[in-house]
Amino acid sequence: MEQKAEIIAIGDEVLSAHTLNTNSHWISGELRKIGVKVVTHYTIADEEESIVRTLNNIQSDTKYIFITGGLGPTRDDITKKVVTKYFKGKLVFHQNILNELKQYFKDRGREFPDTIDGQAYYPDNAEILSNQKGSAKGMCFTKNAQEYYIMPGVPFEMKNIMECQILPKLRKHTKIGYQEFTISTTGISEAELIGKIEFIFAKYPSVVLSYYPSIEGVKIRIGQKIIKGNDDLLQSKKELLSVLGNLIYSTKSEDITEIIAKILLANQLTISVAESCTGGLISHRITQNAGSSKYFKEGIVVYSNQAKEKYLNVKHSTLEKYGAVSKEVVIEMAKGMRKISKTDISLAITGIAGPDGGTKTKPVGLVWIGISTKKKTYAKKINFNKDRILNKQYSSQRALDLLRLELLRDEQN
Amino acid sequence: MEQKAEIIAIGDEVLSAHTLNTNSHWISGELRKIGVKVVTHYTIADEEESIVRTLNNIQSDTKYIFITGGLGPTRDDITKKVVTKYFKGKLVFHQNILNELKQYFKDRGREFPDTIDGQAYYPDNAEILSNQKGSAKGMCFTKNAQEYYIMPGVPFEMKNIMECQILPKLRKHTKIGYQEFTISTTGISEAELIGKIEFIFAKYPSVVLSYYPSIEGVKIRIGQKIIKGNDDLLQSKKELLSVLGNLIYSTKSEDITEIIAKILLANQLTISVAESCTGGLISHRITQNAGSSKYFKEGIVVYSNQAKEKYLNVKHSTLEKYGAVSKEVVIEMAKGMRKISKTDISLAITGIAGPDGGTKTKPVGLVWIGISTKKKTYAKKINFNKDRILNKQYSSQRALDLLRLELLRDEQN
Repeated sequence: MEQKAEIIAIGDEVLSAHTLNTNSHWISGELRKIGVKVVTHYTIADEEESIVRTLNNIQSDTKYIFITGGLGPTRDDITKKVVTKYFKGKLVFHQNILNELKQYFKDRGREFPDTIDGQAYYPDNAEILSNQKGSAKGMCFTKNAQEYYIMPGVPFEMKNIMECQILPKLRKHTKIGYQEFTISTTGISEAELIGKIEFIFAKYPSVVLSYYPSIEGVKIRIGQKIIKGNDDLLQSKKELLSVLGNLIYSTKSEDITEIIAKILLANQLTISVAESCTGGLISHRITQNAGSSKYFKEGIVVYSNQAKEKYLNVKHSTLEKYGAVSKEVVIEMAKGMRKISKTDISLAITGIAGPDGGTKTKPVGLVWIGISTKKKTYAKKINFNKDRILNKQYSSQRALDLLRLELLRDEQN
Repeated sequence: MEQKAEIIAIGDEVLSAHTLNTNSHWISGELRKIGVKVVTHYTIADEEESIVRTLNNIQSDTKYIFITGGLGPTRDDITKKVVTKYFKGKLVFHQNILNELKQYFKDRGREFPDTIDGQAYYPDNAEILSNQKGSAKGMCFTKNAQEYYIMPGVPFEMKNIMECQILPKLRKHTKIGYQEFTISTTGISEAELIGKIEFIFAKYPSVVLSYYPSIEGVKIRIGQKIIKGNDDLLQSKKELLSVLGNLIYSTKSEDITEIIAKILLANQLTISVAESCTGGLISHRITQNAGSSKYFKEGIVVYSNQAKEKYLNVKHSTLEKYGAVSKEVVIEMAKGMRKISKTDISLAITGIAGPDGGTKTKPVGLVWIGISTKKKTYAKKINFNKDRILNKQYSSQRALDLLRLELLRDEQN
């Protein structure tokens, strides 16, 4: 039978809209992967009365209850005290935890604050769950076969406890009754996708199809309850992949930079990036991946015209004649970057991020992307027409996609 | 008296983590502005039983209840049916609404779908709230002086109904009775802050103090109900600013790069950045601000040792003797960057982002930050010890903070 979960986020900062609650969303996604069904999210105040009322409202057939927030050292952090009392336990002092905390602060060259004493007290009736990313540990209470997991609200601390302590344990006791695939596309709109692929799913009514558009492109999710002998899901996936081809960059929810990394590594190729309007974002995204130093050698943020001339040898006359946002300049940028970096491929980008700097013929959002390889150098013009922050993000994704497509073509030759 | 609100989001797509619920967050922010206190967020399934159970759990002293989601034309959209039954009403057909819907589709050149018939039925015991952005209208039920507002889940439709119909009405019945300030600090932990400032607030018990730690630092929020003749909030703010001094980078929720921009512009200074471990993130953050080309001239992502030598003139012997992550190298990087860029100030950073590349003496998370000005060049060592993505983020914030402090010192001289 499918097991149920409820999630409680504790924190005035969420209710007052000072913090967006992403914890419940993340936990729900992880639980879905292991076949646990989330039936309620609660967000409540840091108040004993609210916490107790919500715990009393938990349904009796809910197996797992996740509670985040309110475990810090300040006086409004009351979760530990309240849940310990609720489960009729007692807070006891742990000398080893205090020593550990002292070491934690010492390692960081920071003073040991008095207020942190409370962080060494834990309930005597809960299992303590270690937290490798912070000073507040997690806890697990069990009552009437229901498991209550209490974690800090800081997202990366909560994730550490979930990933290292809770999810491995839950995986042993749950099983997946639903199968799904996520297909990541880019460079095509949701409306265009519908026109291209909905005919496939008309043939497979048991397959559920959803679209998730974002700055990175549109993710398509197809899913089906597992039915023995029914391979509609796999069949529709096969047809989908064949129809969309290279519009798909990942079938495993990877970032486009991970796909690029794989191709570069497999072919022992190196890259460099010359950025104007994206201001370093493309290099930043490439270097998010562990091991990127193997293929990414250097990047230059040539924000001023002088920088374009000095580093990339863009000709002063080209800048004067065509302007910094032009096909001619981006071609010289890409060539210059490849030459100075001695890498196999270079990516260059120049555009008008906005809000200022646009003209009638060169509006805000106009972007030129250039690619230079040993064999050729070419450029593509795109107009995003969004605000500054979005223009940077959309342009970085489109530039990385052009790089991916170039690498795929190169692999085929 | 402060009025209370509860918010219910209905939708399996939120519970299954296919959609992040931003509606409850947005509604809470709007309510805070008019002095209404949100005490609970619920997210529940598109099921009659869950909806009824949650409505039964609404607290009797809650004045406003906001319900979003489940008003569309598809078969899992059951909200209207369920709430109408809950409030003992009856769905009645409105010819004028059907005509309006037909016009809506015609205006958009779209066919009128059969399934939309149900969209012309509304409860006979609710006020109907018009929706200028979609085909599902809002509703308002009143019971025991409690007001229940039902809206579609599509964010821009919900916002339209809130902004045009509900908030103007609520504003007449509520008044802002709360004042607050947000103070952004960085380079100090929550625990250390507590040690430094809680003594102030012991003197002003009516002032509510909260801490919001994130990668960028800890935001402190102080707030108070407006009480005539009581200036405790302003008084405690004054003391807080004086105790924390330069640990505060903003009192207006600005990003640290906006603060840096202001100082650079005011003093007509230019900067350049040489990044290794942060891979372009610092340049990216600086160029998020409109007009950054006035002070940010260039950045180089010197990911390889060769790039450090080639662009920044870091000596081969320095790299050999001390390694790329060392005080000596970051000093040469900062000096080299300032020389080649001809900017007033340069920021340089080198570190081990991880997960690989760490050693016992130079662990993952070790970062050297260098600053070079016309008068001096110096470096600071920090150990973050997080994962790769977090190390990049924490180091970028710390580096930007060192830059800010240098600029402030420079201004004073």
